[in-house]
Amino acid sequence: MTCSNNSIDAPFTIKWTHKLRLTNSSFTEGGVLDSLLATLQPLKILVVVDDGVTSNQPFLNSLHKWCERTGAICDEPLIVIGGEAAKNDFNVVNSVLEAINHNNLCRKSCIIVIGGGAVLDAVGFAASTAHRGLPIIRMPSTSLSQGDSGVGVKNGVNYFGKKNFVGVFDPPYAVINDSSLLQSLDKTQWRSGLSEAIKVALIKDESLFEQIEANSKLLLGRDINAMVSVLQQSAKLHLRHITDGGDPFERLDARPLDFGHWAAHKLEQLTNYTISHGDAVAIGLSIDVACSVRLGFLDNSVAMRIVSLLDSLGFPTNHSELTNTEFLTGIEEFRQHLGGQLTLLMLKGIEEPTEIHRLDHEVVRQVINELR
Amino acid sequence: MTCSNNSIDAPFTIKWTHKLRLTNSSFTEGGVLDSLLATLQPLKILVVVDDGVTSNQPFLNSLHKWCERTGAICDEPLIVIGGEAAKNDFNVVNSVLEAINHNNLCRKSCIIVIGGGAVLDAVGFAASTAHRGLPIIRMPSTSLSQGDSGVGVKNGVNYFGKKNFVGVFDPPYAVINDSSLLQSLDKTQWRSGLSEAIKVALIKDESLFEQIEANSKLLLGRDINAMVSVLQQSAKLHLRHITDGGDPFERLDARPLDFGHWAAHKLEQLTNYTISHGDAVAIGLSIDVACSVRLGFLDNSVAMRIVSLLDSLGFPTNHSELTNTEFLTGIEEFRQHLGGQLTLLMLKGIEEPTEIHRLDHEVVRQVINELR
Repeated sequence: MTCSNNSIDAPFTIKWTHKLRLTNSSFTEGGVLDSLLATLQPLKILVVVDDGVTSNQPFLNSLHKWCERTGAICDEPLIVIGGEAAKNDFNVVNSVLEAINHNNLCRKSCIIVIGGGAVLDAVGFAASTAHRGLPIIRMPSTSLSQGDSGVGVKNGVNYFGKKNFVGVFDPPYAVINDSSLLQSLDKTQWRSGLSEAIKVALIKDESLFEQIEANSKLLLGRDINAMVSVLQQSAKLHLRHITDGGDPFERLDARPLDFGHWAAHKLEQLTNYTISHGDAVAIGLSIDVACSVRLGFLDNSVAMRIVSLLDSLGFPTNHSELTNTEFLTGIEEFRQHLGGQLTLLMLKGIEEPTEIHRLDHEVVRQVINELR
Repeated sequence: MTCSNNSIDAPFTIKWTHKLRLTNSSFTEGGVLDSLLATLQPLKILVVVDDGVTSNQPFLNSLHKWCERTGAICDEPLIVIGGEAAKNDFNVVNSVLEAINHNNLCRKSCIIVIGGGAVLDAVGFAASTAHRGLPIIRMPSTSLSQGDSGVGVKNGVNYFGKKNFVGVFDPPYAVINDSSLLQSLDKTQWRSGLSEAIKVALIKDESLFEQIEANSKLLLGRDINAMVSVLQQSAKLHLRHITDGGDPFERLDARPLDFGHWAAHKLEQLTNYTISHGDAVAIGLSIDVACSVRLGFLDNSVAMRIVSLLDSLGFPTNHSELTNTEFLTGIEEFRQHLGGQLTLLMLKGIEEPTEIHRLDHEVVRQVINELR
């Protein structure tokens, strides 16, 4: 602490432990969930469930049995709307705040949320702001959220039509990736986590890229073991980026995990979120990989290899909205959300990212024209 | 980091530096504000002003001159309603979010808020949640906020009729206590910071208590130097409690700075916030000091000395709403907001606090009957 008569600078730190659990049966007696709660000892527990999970009857049956067995549960699980609608207004946030108030949950209580990324974001925002923060256990229900956003430390909702305009950085108490949640995903949701896994592999782990390549047929054919293995690697890479990357709350300019994301975010917005985030990321990766070639960073053969992999997993690598004149404003909007200087990632090779601080519209236009 | 195949526990820390600046002229060229901004280098600056400050014309003139001189200022300062009304609904929060959106402020921009505690809380909540957190410089405008809440790390608004139901822990970029803001305070606002100063002195610093006693006539007579000296001590004690107390984000049960506050919060609620927080705290202190005597912790002579000091500074030490049958529910509501076990502070002597975990209603009823 530096201190003069008229000036005090007092440093302090806050510690967190980011906890990730991998399982195929969260609700087993004495299993991961019971074990986490035995440490947390919450006074009350509110369970919030994405309505997209309600088609997974075996999972719901296990949940209900667990609720009957476990003390401190408030009423029935609160079912909320899933998908981007969960965070496009404050309805889900408000319904959770109301349940917290109605059930007199306090900071020593706990919320368990089971759902896709948007539901985790909205429910997480309510949990982080009620009484200045209740502990939340996230159970991501989609391949996308299990491999990527669910293991992050962000939450929030869209406002003024802008993605994640309102939110906070706040680590969840724990994240449980339960592979039994993946069984009921439709085709688009099933593959959705793989484009994010490819993204993080391109930046951080060539062996994961090779694993996805080697297992592409199994992955396309819904082999659960192949999928779980990829999502676990992806989740661990994301988690370690947060805990060991030196910038968990993104105070610096770089956003090294946002490769391909300026285009993905804009495409989601232009399609009114009818495209899945996973598909949008696949297209965003295709664009930024092609830009990397055109800017002289990347060999064309490597770019072809990446786009072929996306293609072989069933991802689209092009979209009619890419020629919308508004599409290129996504670069500036991406800069604005973080603020400061534009910082985008390009690739020099697999596991060889490089930063750029401007991206000419003309380069992107040419790339889009050449996408198949 | 502990890591098995199915379980990762990865610790990480976030660092903050809590910065407090004491001045009587924030807007001097090259002064404290310019100096803070020279380090922060915000791209844009939004200034938000409590309408209670608008009566302080000399201060406003300095602010306007500074705005004209300084780059990156957005439009005119945004004037918001002051007092508890600022946080009784989301109107102020929303008006700040709208200004952030309208002016395209990003995480590299900055908000300067000049106002009383409620305005700091509401504007702070908007700043902490927009784009997951913009830096905010607080300039507390009341004796209460300069000595107490303004130097804290909390923000929030009331919801479901409950104080601070929604909010976050988030340290401001810096706090500037400018004594020229105190000149225009009315009598109630002037004394308001002194009950919080007495509170923190009773818990942490006997010499501050003696200083307030020795200067009580000067303080009652609006001597600015006497007031500034007390508020500075009070602010430093509050700040050090946060940065050196081991629990900046209040994860533990104890709330050592909330002495006398269960009663103060309930009284504010029962009077619909027509009583000032400072006056409510004075009454809350009188009650908890008398409880400390009745529970056998404190000498009656010390209690008399404390209540006499509050009285000599012009504070009320009793209120008709204390006999409202609802008043005693304040103990349970205080427990609920933090959650877990009830933890209240009592006094064994000045600078000798002690914790209790239950407080019989009958004890409080007797104490209230005996208050003069």
